[in-house]
Amino acid sequence: MNYKMTVQYDGYRYAGWQRQGNTDQTIQARLEKTISALLAEPVSIQGSGRTDAGVHALGQVASFHTELPIRDCRQFLLDLNEALPSDIAVIRLDAASPRFHARLNAKEKTYRYSVWNSPIPNVLERRHQYQMPAPLDDEAMRTAASMLLGIHDFAGFSTGHTKKSTVRHIRSIQIKRKNELVEFYFTGNGFLHNMVRILTGTLIEVGLHKRPPESVLEILESKDRTLAGFTAPAQGLCLMEVNY
Amino acid sequence: MNYKMTVQYDGYRYAGWQRQGNTDQTIQARLEKTISALLAEPVSIQGSGRTDAGVHALGQVASFHTELPIRDCRQFLLDLNEALPSDIAVIRLDAASPRFHARLNAKEKTYRYSVWNSPIPNVLERRHQYQMPAPLDDEAMRTAASMLLGIHDFAGFSTGHTKKSTVRHIRSIQIKRKNELVEFYFTGNGFLHNMVRILTGTLIEVGLHKRPPESVLEILESKDRTLAGFTAPAQGLCLMEVNY
Repeated sequence: MNYKMTVQYDGYRYAGWQRQGNTDQTIQARLEKTISALLAEPVSIQGSGRTDAGVHALGQVASFHTELPIRDCRQFLLDLNEALPSDIAVIRLDAASPRFHARLNAKEKTYRYSVWNSPIPNVLERRHQYQMPAPLDDEAMRTAASMLLGIHDFAGFSTGHTKKSTVRHIRSIQIKRKNELVEFYFTGNGFLHNMVRILTGTLIEVGLHKRPPESVLEILESKDRTLAGFTAPAQGLCLMEVNY
Repeated sequence: MNYKMTVQYDGYRYAGWQRQGNTDQTIQARLEKTISALLAEPVSIQGSGRTDAGVHALGQVASFHTELPIRDCRQFLLDLNEALPSDIAVIRLDAASPRFHARLNAKEKTYRYSVWNSPIPNVLERRHQYQMPAPLDDEAMRTAASMLLGIHDFAGFSTGHTKKSTVRHIRSIQIKRKNELVEFYFTGNGFLHNMVRILTGTLIEVGLHKRPPESVLEILESKDRTLAGFTAPAQGLCLMEVNY
C-alpha cells in the first residue's frame, strides 16, 4: 500500500528534513520513527525534497509504502499527531496509487520567504521571519523579480557543486506587502540548493538599492555565485505547496 | 522627566511581567536593567498591570521617570531594541506629562485569547494559541458572553483572595472565527487575577456543550470559583491594548 501525506513543521530546532546518520533531530527521522511505531512495521518516507536546517513547511508532501493497509486514515492521522512532537504535524493522509512518489512526481513547488521590514522587532513572529530594518523598495524588487521568470540556468543562485542540470523554470514570483511584512512567493518546477534564499537575498539587496535590478541578468549569464546577493537566513523560509 | 512606552513580548520563557526577587526572567526586570544601563541611571518601570508567566503582550503600556531627559526618543528606541532580548520589544516611546502613571491612569484594557479549534495542531503558532480539538459552538459561546457584559462582581471568575473590590465593568466581548482560529477579545476597565483565562475556559465549556450559556449567571451570583470553568492556559493570552 502507498500513502501520500501533507506535513507541516516548525524547522527551528531541526537539522532539516533529511535523515542524517543517527541523529533524530530531522523531520524525516521523527516521522519514520513515529509512523513505524504506530504501524508496527519499519517505514521509509520519501519527501518531495529536502528542506535545510531551520526551514519551515506548511505544505511539505511525503509518501511511504506499508505492508498492511491503514484501516482508518482519519483515526491514524489523529493518533499520529498525538504521538509526534508539537512542532511537527501531518495535516492530511490519503491512500495513493502504487506508483506515486513524492519526490519523483513533484511538478511544481511554492516557497514563501517572510521579511519583517522594520527597525522594530516583531516579537511573536521573530522565528518565522527575517528582520530587515532599512526600508525596501518594493517596485525595484518586483522589476528584478520579473527578470528572473522563465527557464534559466540558475547556477549563480545556488551553492555547492552538482553534475546535474542547474536549469530550472520559475513560473511566478510575487512580492506582497502588508505594512511591515513583506512576503516573497516563488513558484517553479524545482529549486537548487539555497536557491530561494539566495534569490531572496539578492532581491533584498535590490530593494536596499545596493544593486540595480538588472544585476540579476548578469548573475544568470555568468552563473557566478559570487555576483549574487547574500543567502537570506533559513528562519524566513517556508515550503508552502507541492503540486503533482 | 516622565516617559510612556508601548511594549511587546513573547511571554513563553518569562516568569511574567512583575519583577520578582533576584531573578531577571521577568519582563519588568529585563526592561529596567536595559533602560537603566542605556541611561546610566537607575530606572523603575511601572506597567499598566501584571501579566502572568507565559502570557504575551502586543500592547502593554509602561511608564518611567528619569533624572535627565532623553535627547532623541527615536534613536533611544532603536538602541533599546538592539539591547533587549529578541522576545521583548519597545514599539513606541514618548515623553509624557509628569503625572502620567501607566497603572493608575489606565481606563480600559483589551485582551485577546486565541484558540486553535482543530484536532490537527498548528505548528507555527502553537506557542501563541491553545489547541481545542473538539468543535466549539460559537453561537452558544456568544450567548454566554453577552450575559457577562456590564458591571458585575467577578469574584467567581478569579483566583486568590483580595480585600479589594472584585467588581469590574466588561464593556465588550467579541468572538471572531477565521476557519480553525477562534479569537476571544475582552475589553473592560480592569480584570482580576486569572479572570480572562477563567472567562475563556468557561466559554469554551459552553462551546463544548458541557454547560449551558446561562450557567455564567450562576457563577456571577454565587461568586464561587468552583462553579466556573477551567483556567485556560497562559500561552493563548495576549494583552492587546491599554487605553488612558
